[in-house]
This record gives sequence, structure tokens and C-alpha cells, in this order.
Amino acid sequence: MRITTVGLDADDTLWHNETIFRLTQDRFRDLLADVAEPAVLDARLAAVEQRNLALYGYGVKGFTLSLIETAMELTGGDPPGRMIADILAAGREMLAHPVETLPGVDQALADLSTRYRLVLITKGDLLHQEQKLAASGLGDLFAAVEILSEKDASTYARIFERHGTGASAAAMCGNSMRSDILPALEAGAYAAHIPYHVTWAHEVAEAPSDHPRFIELAAIAQLPAWVRSLG
Amino acid sequence: MRITTVGLDADDTLWHNETIFRLTQDRFRDLLADVAEPAVLDARLAAVEQRNLALYGYGVKGFTLSLIETAMELTGGDPPGRMIADILAAGREMLAHPVETLPGVDQALADLSTRYRLVLITKGDLLHQEQKLAASGLGDLFAAVEILSEKDASTYARIFERHGTGASAAAMCGNSMRSDILPALEAGAYAAHIPYHVTWAHEVAEAPSDHPRFIELAAIAQLPAWVRSLG
Repeated sequence: MRITTVGLDADDTLWHNETIFRLTQDRFRDLLADVAEPAVLDARLAAVEQRNLALYGYGVKGFTLSLIETAMELTGGDPPGRMIADILAAGREMLAHPVETLPGVDQALADLSTRYRLVLITKGDLLHQEQKLAASGLGDLFAAVEILSEKDASTYARIFERHGTGASAAAMCGNSMRSDILPALEAGAYAAHIPYHVTWAHEVAEAPSDHPRFIELAAIAQLPAWVRSLG
Repeated sequence: MRITTVGLDADDTLWHNETIFRLTQDRFRDLLADVAEPAVLDARLAAVEQRNLALYGYGVKGFTLSLIETAMELTGGDPPGRMIADILAAGREMLAHPVETLPGVDQALADLSTRYRLVLITKGDLLHQEQKLAASGLGDLFAAVEILSEKDASTYARIFERHGTGASAAAMCGNSMRSDILPALEAGAYAAHIPYHVTWAHEVAEAPSDHPRFIELAAIAQLPAWVRSLG
């Protein structure tokens, strides 16, 4: 089967994202250093995020609201001085953070775009993802952009049908086993996992063992050759 | 020219939205009654929202963050007691608020869907808009759903090309002159304005005078007959 379409995740596949969340979380730990141990704070924040996920979805605005909620809980509803204002500022800085593409991304995408239809497939805040794509300078390489609230097998099947010749003629590439790889394989696509050095706990999942349409790559520079090898 | 596609705005066209924002804003006025006069508070909130619009976009999460920021400013960074927790709770309630379709919507859409491709065209939080559409029970009537960060003429042209036979064979219906009507007319589509009883200041704009493809309707029940009259 000849590959016609390559789907690419955005955050932590094309550009840094989780590190920016981690930096903000470090700053949050500093802000609450007198109130809670880092481990206690991390656990509480993770619980608040998980509780809010169904309402807030993915992205910076929901994360900022969860940071504020966690600060309120840990300070007994009485956060000192500028704590809340500082969290709001940290959230705005995340949204305005410059986009830094990962090494090899520009060349790999330029190469792939000459042979395949590239589709950006990502979760998160709609406006923020559009802004990051524009700031990345990669926008013109993509034939389509799909920003989703959740990634599952039926979503991938629909997208690869719409922007190509179905999942069996498509390859998906991303850093999240849970969102990018497993559901794309389930839909019938090929999938290449390229790990990022940190992964949000929510996105962690087991790699498939010996799956004929799956590969683990060390870097996106290896992606074009692998896709070509699929025929 | 025969109409093939009908675009419909969602918030305040198919279901109540602005009233829910207004109710939350009333609650916000009560929370800050000891701190600021309603007029002062409204002006400050409007300024904060406007300042944040480019970063936050449209939707409840950005609105909640702007409420918190306004409360911080008006209390000199020291909000009393449960004020912030109450604002967070108000934001979550907006996200979880039941969807109430406006009178005549179900029947008008059922009627239109037998003759035309219906496309939902809306701004706001991606996840929240999907949740509202699911809760409305109207999802099956739509051939496509387009959730956007901004509505302009090129967006309408692209959507009516993708889901039909171009803007000249499409009609758009919505409550916002600024987002639903003027850019759809500019793209070459027909447009029906159905006012909602309150409009966010940001969405207010002049009606076009004597435009051959524009109509003002009192209720969505009048929409199917008007679209049929276009031929």
C-alpha cells in the first residue's frame, strides 16, 4: 500500500511544550514553597488537573485555572500577596512563549511535504495551537490542520479518510504513545513514536510489542526514510 | 443560484449563551459589591477582557481568567475569603451548564436538514462547543462542524467551498452582525441575522443597508422559508 498522508502531532513532536509546562510548575513550586512540599503540591495539582480534564480539556488556560485552584486549596482559601496575580502572569507568559521547533523538524517536514500530504493533528486550545503553528513558520508545509479535543481511533480514521486515501495509506508520528500511536494503529495506520525527554503522566502508555505497523525512532530526522520504506 | 449549504452559528443562535455570561457577571458584581460600583467593575472587566482577547480567544476559560484578574486588580491583590474560589466555581458551572435550545430551533433545523447541508460554524473553546453540541441533541442534523478561533470572509469562503459548492450557493445564519453576517456577505454568501435579546459589546456592528443578499429575521422559524425563497 502506497502511503499518501503523514499525520504529525505538534506539541513535543514539532516544538517544545511540556518543558514550558514544567518550567511553570517549577515556578509554582517556588511560589508555594512556604505552603507545601514539592511532592505534596505536585500530587495535589495532578489530582486537580485530572478532576478538571473533562471540563477544561487540554491547554494552557485550563492548566492556569487548575494552578489557581490548587493554590487556593493549599493556602486554605487565603493565598498571600501576589500569588494569584503571579500565576495569571505565568499563564499568559506560556501563551505568549516563543515557539522553538525541535532539531531536524524543518528539514524532515520539507522533505516529507514533497511526497506526501502532511496533516497537523493536535489537541489543546484552538487559538493557541493556531498561533504556535503560525509562529513556527511551518504552516505552509501542511495540507490541513486538525485541532481536536481528543484523539481516538475513529478520529484518526476520519482524518485520514478526509485528507488522503484512508488510514491504511497513512502514517502518524508523535511523542505520545497514548494519543498519537495506539489510536492511529487501531485505526489501521502506520505509526512512528519519537519520544520527547519528558512526558505528561496523562499521556504515558505501554509501547505495542512487535506490531507490524509500528516503529520507534530516536529523532524526526529518521522519519522521511521510514515513511519511504513503507512503499 | 441554488442554495446547497446553510451555515449556522451556535451560541445565542441555537442555544442560550450570553445570558449565562451575564448571570455570571451579575454574580461577580455581587461578590465584589463591597469593592467596586457595578459600572466601575463592568468597565474594568471589559478592559481586561479586551486586553486578553488576543491571548485567550473566546470562551468560558478565558472569561474566568479575566474575572479573576479583574478581582485581583480591584482588591489591590488581596481578594477576601472565598472570592477566587467562588469565581472558579462560577466558571466551572458555566462549562457544566445545561444546554437550552432556543424556541423553534429543533424544527427549523430538522426542516432545513432535509434539503441542505447544514454546517455549524462557531467560535469558542473547542471542547466546550463540542460538549454543547452533543448535549443539544442537534449533532446528527449537521453534515459538518467548524469550530474556529475567528470568523472572517476567507474563513467563510473556505468552509462553504469545503462543505458545498462555494459561498454563492450558501446562506449563513447567526445573531452576531460582526461575526456571522458581515464576513459571510463579504465572502459572497447570503446571510440572515436573527438578533438575540442581548449582545456582547465586542460583537456589535452596523447592519448593512439594502444589501441584496441580507435579511433580518425575527425568529429562526422563518429561516427555512427564506432559504427556500432563494431558489
